[in-house]
Amino acid sequence: MAAAPVWSVDPRSGKRRERVGVEASAGEVDVVVRAAWEARGSLADRGVRAGFLRGAAGLLEASGEALVEVADAETALGGVRLRGELARTCYQLRAFADVVEEGSFLGVIIDHPDAAATPPVPDLRRFKVPLGVVAVYAASNFPFAFSVAGGDTASALAAGCPVVVKAHPDHPGLSERVAGVLRRAAVERGLPAGVVGLVHGFEAGVALVGHPLVAAAGFTGSVRGGRALFDAAAARPVPIPFHGELGSLNPVVVTEAAASERAEEIGAGLAGSMTLGVGQFCVKPGLVLVPASPGGDRLVEALAGGVAQAAGVLLDGRMRDNFVAGVAERAELAEVECPVVPGGEGERGVRAGFLTVPAGRLTEPGAHDVLLEECFGPVTVIARYGDPAEVDAVLGRLPGNLTATVHLSASESEGQGRAGELLARLTPLAGRVLVNGWPTGVAVAPAQHHGGPYPATTSTSTSVGATAIERWLRPVTYQHTPQALLPPELRDDNPLGLPRRVNGRLQH
Amino acid sequence: MAAAPVWSVDPRSGKRRERVGVEASAGEVDVVVRAAWEARGSLADRGVRAGFLRGAAGLLEASGEALVEVADAETALGGVRLRGELARTCYQLRAFADVVEEGSFLGVIIDHPDAAATPPVPDLRRFKVPLGVVAVYAASNFPFAFSVAGGDTASALAAGCPVVVKAHPDHPGLSERVAGVLRRAAVERGLPAGVVGLVHGFEAGVALVGHPLVAAAGFTGSVRGGRALFDAAAARPVPIPFHGELGSLNPVVVTEAAASERAEEIGAGLAGSMTLGVGQFCVKPGLVLVPASPGGDRLVEALAGGVAQAAGVLLDGRMRDNFVAGVAERAELAEVECPVVPGGEGERGVRAGFLTVPAGRLTEPGAHDVLLEECFGPVTVIARYGDPAEVDAVLGRLPGNLTATVHLSASESEGQGRAGELLARLTPLAGRVLVNGWPTGVAVAPAQHHGGPYPATTSTSTSVGATAIERWLRPVTYQHTPQALLPPELRDDNPLGLPRRVNGRLQH
Repeated sequence: MAAAPVWSVDPRSGKRRERVGVEASAGEVDVVVRAAWEARGSLADRGVRAGFLRGAAGLLEASGEALVEVADAETALGGVRLRGELARTCYQLRAFADVVEEGSFLGVIIDHPDAAATPPVPDLRRFKVPLGVVAVYAASNFPFAFSVAGGDTASALAAGCPVVVKAHPDHPGLSERVAGVLRRAAVERGLPAGVVGLVHGFEAGVALVGHPLVAAAGFTGSVRGGRALFDAAAARPVPIPFHGELGSLNPVVVTEAAASERAEEIGAGLAGSMTLGVGQFCVKPGLVLVPASPGGDRLVEALAGGVAQAAGVLLDGRMRDNFVAGVAERAELAEVECPVVPGGEGERGVRAGFLTVPAGRLTEPGAHDVLLEECFGPVTVIARYGDPAEVDAVLGRLPGNLTATVHLSASESEGQGRAGELLARLTPLAGRVLVNGWPTGVAVAPAQHHGGPYPATTSTSTSVGATAIERWLRPVTYQHTPQALLPPELRDDNPLGLPRRVNGRLQH
Repeated sequence: MAAAPVWSVDPRSGKRRERVGVEASAGEVDVVVRAAWEARGSLADRGVRAGFLRGAAGLLEASGEALVEVADAETALGGVRLRGELARTCYQLRAFADVVEEGSFLGVIIDHPDAAATPPVPDLRRFKVPLGVVAVYAASNFPFAFSVAGGDTASALAAGCPVVVKAHPDHPGLSERVAGVLRRAAVERGLPAGVVGLVHGFEAGVALVGHPLVAAAGFTGSVRGGRALFDAAAARPVPIPFHGELGSLNPVVVTEAAASERAEEIGAGLAGSMTLGVGQFCVKPGLVLVPASPGGDRLVEALAGGVAQAAGVLLDGRMRDNFVAGVAERAELAEVECPVVPGGEGERGVRAGFLTVPAGRLTEPGAHDVLLEECFGPVTVIARYGDPAEVDAVLGRLPGNLTATVHLSASESEGQGRAGELLARLTPLAGRVLVNGWPTGVAVAPAQHHGGPYPATTSTSTSVGATAIERWLRPVTYQHTPQALLPPELRDDNPLGLPRRVNGRLQH
């Protein structure tokens, strides 16, 4: 049987743009994984890794306009957004180069012998080593930042792990070009091109997570696809860590006082956040608890004004179909109203909108539960509550989320009223809790956490920010090992000048 | 159907000592888990947790002799060993109290807003929060240190997580008593007794890992049992982290020069390590690569002298049967010899021994592969190698291990010869690498790592040492949150005096 071709498709027209290649067979996946595995030693030096990451950022920038053009043709996300995303991607590569050089991620801990301990402590020296080849499953909605050269790849390379990317079918042409840039950056630094591999095709993705030489995986996508791969990773003869970001509703609570004070600002902010990237963000606010009050009414009015003109093209036809069907299913439910009706626009587009429902419909299991499920695209659900107890009841029924947000009044922001209680209720629900802001826009920073209770992510780690590197490492401790045989990271004279914990005390 | 009784059994006689209680039904497990879940808020304060852990250590010591007596009657491990293990357990509880108070484990990271970043960084503040109720599956072979008040429990409580322990059937009477002490320590500190629960029975263990309110699990035991529970944890509607320690061969390599220099010392050391605790240690050296040289011959002779008198009683009759059958199966293989024959001794005891085999028998798959599997009890396999290439070939066939050890000569310890290469070969195989020592004896220390590639452990974390606390936490980031609403750990004035990373720089 001939291999299935891989086509680049323009979502604006639905037409094929170019034939990118063919889907990889299990044998071809094996070749790519083995090349990555053979290349692992070349990433052992931290300086080489940092230089590689910075070189890749420079080459991506140098090819920026050409890459953005391909990305826009494949995703319809538009030049402005894609230029911004590329800049973020390059910033992220350089940020991980800084993380690699700074060295705290190695987690060096040294204990000198202590005969007084129970049992006595011998000379113990711990640091972290790379896990091995990392499989990266690229996202549809961030063709740069969560794809071939995105956060998973950058953090894995920073950790010293070669990467094999399973390209997303929504942007295979861009994926090939970005992989080419990464491989060129590798070769320019004297590394084997095989430190970054790329494969296309659903079956290739399945083969990848099952390959004996793959040591860990990162994934950004749907609950269905992510759970299937998570299950496959766990069912291997040797299970591997699977860091998947699957889905998130990103609840927002607006207090009555906040709505009263800032209805127009909050409504406009929500309109911007839920339509950003045509609503195709994993942190899009998908459920907003708004008081059934005059302030709440003004908020809904402002939201209606903000989204009334919003329209766009989704990443592919299947997503468009799912969006149109999803909003139609939700709109049909009892007591659901559509102040601005979301749905299809023309032959390939969609228009933004939102639904309202009395919060009381969501406090008990029932037909309205679909409103508590993520709907990918420019739509959100406004649940109007009469009593704060309804807020608590709805929050108590939510699964895990990437983010949870509360909008407070000025005095609540100073700690008055229920503010502290609300924050305490939101914290168990999410990995990032926001006050008086919007969850879209995930900064690349040391304190970032992009993850959350399942199904937000399948592990407790983050896919954005400095600590994302921790996913691809494991600790090793050397006991009673002569200085001459220790890795330089663990020697008494600290030749690399690393931050370390020695006999319980931080030294840096 | 009446609930199955739980009996305490004396392994020296095989006789029932006392009826401890009954196996828990799923409904009873639910009651215990809910009590733990309801108690979670009481552990929020770090000072309270530290006090509770120290209080528990004190109460365990106060009841020490009575507990050791029960432990010995149920395990036959002997008073000296059990007193030492209890001391270790109390030291460990206090060490985690220190970890809780020091506060680095919270991983506080604060980023002030930075408009120059791409995208701009808002105010972000991250720390770690407890996961929730932790299920602990107690080990057979450490009735104190890896059981009800052992490392998993101590680290989970330190993290702020209530614990439900599934008792090991080899010491149910001790388990009840230790759980009683922990609950008394809780109540003395004003905590609900439910912060520590205890259940008996295989089905109860299955119900526990599947309970919706259980957020994570720790396990120490066999590959078979551990893998079944790992699979159950991964297959849940909401999967949970499962930190299991399943099995380890703990390979040792003795260089020809080391054998030549220190044959008698190494042989005697090996005899002591492999028979410690009647060979029932997860870090027992189970495969020793010894040169086919005069030095190697002397080493084997010293080993024979050291183990010739060793005998004891295993933890239960099933283990004894498995040991006797396991050594018999191995001894029958071609070219396998038994300089000291291991096996049954009298009606209930076992005697220590070891097998030798040419290393060439282990370099390719075949009938001898059983020699590369852990055999619980006082036996080890000596593989005699002619060429160092055989060492590499055997090491290349091993699964993951908790430990890997090399014995070197004086000049090799200075870095001469193949020493560095050997260390580089051992590092990918294990979580702890030892030079010129023995893996038995796992110190409780910040730099300890007790874990390793599967099947040694099912995750990359450790079950011993300060970093074991990381297993029971997840990060949360607060974005743009007013000072008045921030947890004290994240406030600008750092009222708790925590070590933190602020704007990329460590502060402590």
